[in-house]
Amino acid sequence: MTYPNTQAILSLVQDALEKDDLKKAIQILQTLKPADQADIFEDLDDEDQVSLLPNLKTQVSADILENIEDEDAARLVAKIPEETAVRIINEMEPDEAADLLGDIHPKQAQSILAQLDNPEEVRPLLIHPDESAGGLMTSEFLALRRRMTVRDALQAVRSWQPDKDQIYYLFVVDANLKLCGVVSPRQLIIAEPDTLIMDIMDPDVISVKAGMDQEKVAELMLRYDLLALPVVDENNVLLGIITIDDVMDVVVEEATEDIQKLGGAQPLDEPYLLTNAASIFKKRISWLLLLFVTESLTGTVLRHFEGELEAVVALSFFIPLLIGTGGNAGSQTTSTIIRALAVGDMEIGDALKAIWHETRVGLLLGTAMAGVAFIRALTWGSPSTLSITVALAIFVIVVWANLLGAVLPTLASRFKIDPTVVSGPVMSTLVDATGLFIYFTIAKAVLGI
Amino acid sequence: MTYPNTQAILSLVQDALEKDDLKKAIQILQTLKPADQADIFEDLDDEDQVSLLPNLKTQVSADILENIEDEDAARLVAKIPEETAVRIINEMEPDEAADLLGDIHPKQAQSILAQLDNPEEVRPLLIHPDESAGGLMTSEFLALRRRMTVRDALQAVRSWQPDKDQIYYLFVVDANLKLCGVVSPRQLIIAEPDTLIMDIMDPDVISVKAGMDQEKVAELMLRYDLLALPVVDENNVLLGIITIDDVMDVVVEEATEDIQKLGGAQPLDEPYLLTNAASIFKKRISWLLLLFVTESLTGTVLRHFEGELEAVVALSFFIPLLIGTGGNAGSQTTSTIIRALAVGDMEIGDALKAIWHETRVGLLLGTAMAGVAFIRALTWGSPSTLSITVALAIFVIVVWANLLGAVLPTLASRFKIDPTVVSGPVMSTLVDATGLFIYFTIAKAVLGI
Repeated sequence: MTYPNTQAILSLVQDALEKDDLKKAIQILQTLKPADQADIFEDLDDEDQVSLLPNLKTQVSADILENIEDEDAARLVAKIPEETAVRIINEMEPDEAADLLGDIHPKQAQSILAQLDNPEEVRPLLIHPDESAGGLMTSEFLALRRRMTVRDALQAVRSWQPDKDQIYYLFVVDANLKLCGVVSPRQLIIAEPDTLIMDIMDPDVISVKAGMDQEKVAELMLRYDLLALPVVDENNVLLGIITIDDVMDVVVEEATEDIQKLGGAQPLDEPYLLTNAASIFKKRISWLLLLFVTESLTGTVLRHFEGELEAVVALSFFIPLLIGTGGNAGSQTTSTIIRALAVGDMEIGDALKAIWHETRVGLLLGTAMAGVAFIRALTWGSPSTLSITVALAIFVIVVWANLLGAVLPTLASRFKIDPTVVSGPVMSTLVDATGLFIYFTIAKAVLGI
Repeated sequence: MTYPNTQAILSLVQDALEKDDLKKAIQILQTLKPADQADIFEDLDDEDQVSLLPNLKTQVSADILENIEDEDAARLVAKIPEETAVRIINEMEPDEAADLLGDIHPKQAQSILAQLDNPEEVRPLLIHPDESAGGLMTSEFLALRRRMTVRDALQAVRSWQPDKDQIYYLFVVDANLKLCGVVSPRQLIIAEPDTLIMDIMDPDVISVKAGMDQEKVAELMLRYDLLALPVVDENNVLLGIITIDDVMDVVVEEATEDIQKLGGAQPLDEPYLLTNAASIFKKRISWLLLLFVTESLTGTVLRHFEGELEAVVALSFFIPLLIGTGGNAGSQTTSTIIRALAVGDMEIGDALKAIWHETRVGLLLGTAMAGVAFIRALTWGSPSTLSITVALAIFVIVVWANLLGAVLPTLASRFKIDPTVVSGPVMSTLVDATGLFIYFTIAKAVLGI
């Protein structure tokens, strides 16, 4: 199976809208799955969106607001009548509703919140930062009691009407609403109707506090293969649950941010093609300028060795080759280390192990590259002293780059700085200036200039 | 909650083993969750592993083999008595058992397979490549029949004894075992016992063929928030199901591979700290050498402009600055584009959009950087003609780097080459040689040398 051809369906919807055939457009949209509906909806003109949204089935409109970009959803809600917004938001999952209300004007948010059927499901979610466990959780969950029978529990499941038709686990609370166990739907089906929940539940349940960072939440759920994770307050009172689908989105989003940062840019807030050129410019220019200033050091180093350069112009032929190789070696190291830290293959405590690891790798790579560089320099017709200079320089530079690539991200991490600041571009820039210094120092010694 | 202190528990286990107190070591291990057991087990000496594994509860041994690195599991199985291996593998999930058998000597695999309780669950899984839908799926699933009543279905769930205590969805097949619908556990609990499954099932079920690439599988499950995805053959006969926990591992693994490749290295097969220096060397040296050869072009360009360099040595001061900035701009672009392609924010069909996008971003960045470079050159006391040369060169180089950063990954993707080949290091290397050519061509024209 592949996705439906959303481009073709989009044209059909646009055609219908152009002919003012709202009914047909709605009909086409409503046959699709939520993710596809949102995809197509997002590509329509603003005015088409505004005229369509209030006329779709309320559940479809709610799904669309959940699946399109947060900023687009907020902009749209500001443009439709408030009673329509209330009707749609009532059908959204509480965590998604809270995210949306957090993105619109506080006055409008308050007004909409007051008119919701279950404001108490949404209000507590508004206080948690978006990127914390509390920001990820939904307050729409079914909690079983310890002293319920399985029959009562099944009855509770039957009468419960969630927005999403899926139960992952059922969490069990005591009389003070404190989390005390977990039951899977399968256990509920298997057990005798008269059994007490406390007799079939697993009391060893993993939970997190509302303030935990979403990256840690994801790590935990992946590690223990959890489909849902309960969130509790300081007193272990159950506040909500985090489901795996929301966490998968977090995992993808965090990896995207890391990749963009490793490329030397601030991560984008929206998908690439939906971000305009000026916003992309803003995300990139600060790093580019900072690196430019740092890279200026290379000029200072070169001016310092102006005499040597004038004496042996051939020295300059090898500049890009040497510092380029150093930058590449540094990039290789840094991306490996940063990812190992991100997925938990390596902890800060392993810093020394990593540095020792990279020292050995650097010695191996440096030796190999020195051999190749020596031969390359000779075949270019360079005198043997210059060839030796180049080979020695590349050896030291590669070892140095590997070391730097291991030390800097672990150091950043140790000081609670996001290690992705040591991106590929940052590494090559740092290696450029220091590499030149190494090169000319060796040149002075070997060539006696 | 955080992880248990595995370092401390590891010491306890090691202590017990040193005192030959196997019983205590086993006792400690068996109180932990599978992921933690595997973590600690992996850090033990080989001989301790070999003496522990046959003596743990069979289910614990099976969990450990599922959770440690594939290579380690295979090595371990080769060292324990075959009847012990059979006993443990019998308790493993069929997809994990198949992966393991695929990693050991074919002769031993055949012999173990023949002794399993349910070889027919494992054998068909052996034929699928690891990175395909077939390689990800498990054959241990419960298929309901269309004409079953809900009562019969609940009975089937009760008598089904899976290795993993979790039902995601229940898939429904017709008399020819063809996939025809899906039922959630909640629907089964809610429905009247006499209802037929075909009356409550959702016939619109998403499925994939066994050959689909695991990256596509992950994209599909994320897009439609699926907890389980059925795998079918050419005739729509249900072969197995893929569960979300296996796919989450794929998502993390693929992002790790992409990040390592974007850093200019072949991805590692095992976690970083478990990979020895020689293996890391092998994963990096080929790219480093290839880039070295390409980077050699910079030497050719510089020798070509030897006369100009000798006439104005100051030209060389700006070499690292100019090509470094170009490489950074290219890296920024290429990492954004590659990630947009990977997560589906951008399709190959959007190539022209992306190129137009980056042209505009490049013009903005180029203009800003040219201004800064001009001022920097002047404050270094460079003559105004040289400053103009540098400013013009940086403008052209940045626009060129952005363009190249957009064109190359989309081009690779179009020709079915993994776009991550255009890593940061590849970009900077390509921009280095071409950037120098741009710089000296502009210098010749402006300075009239």
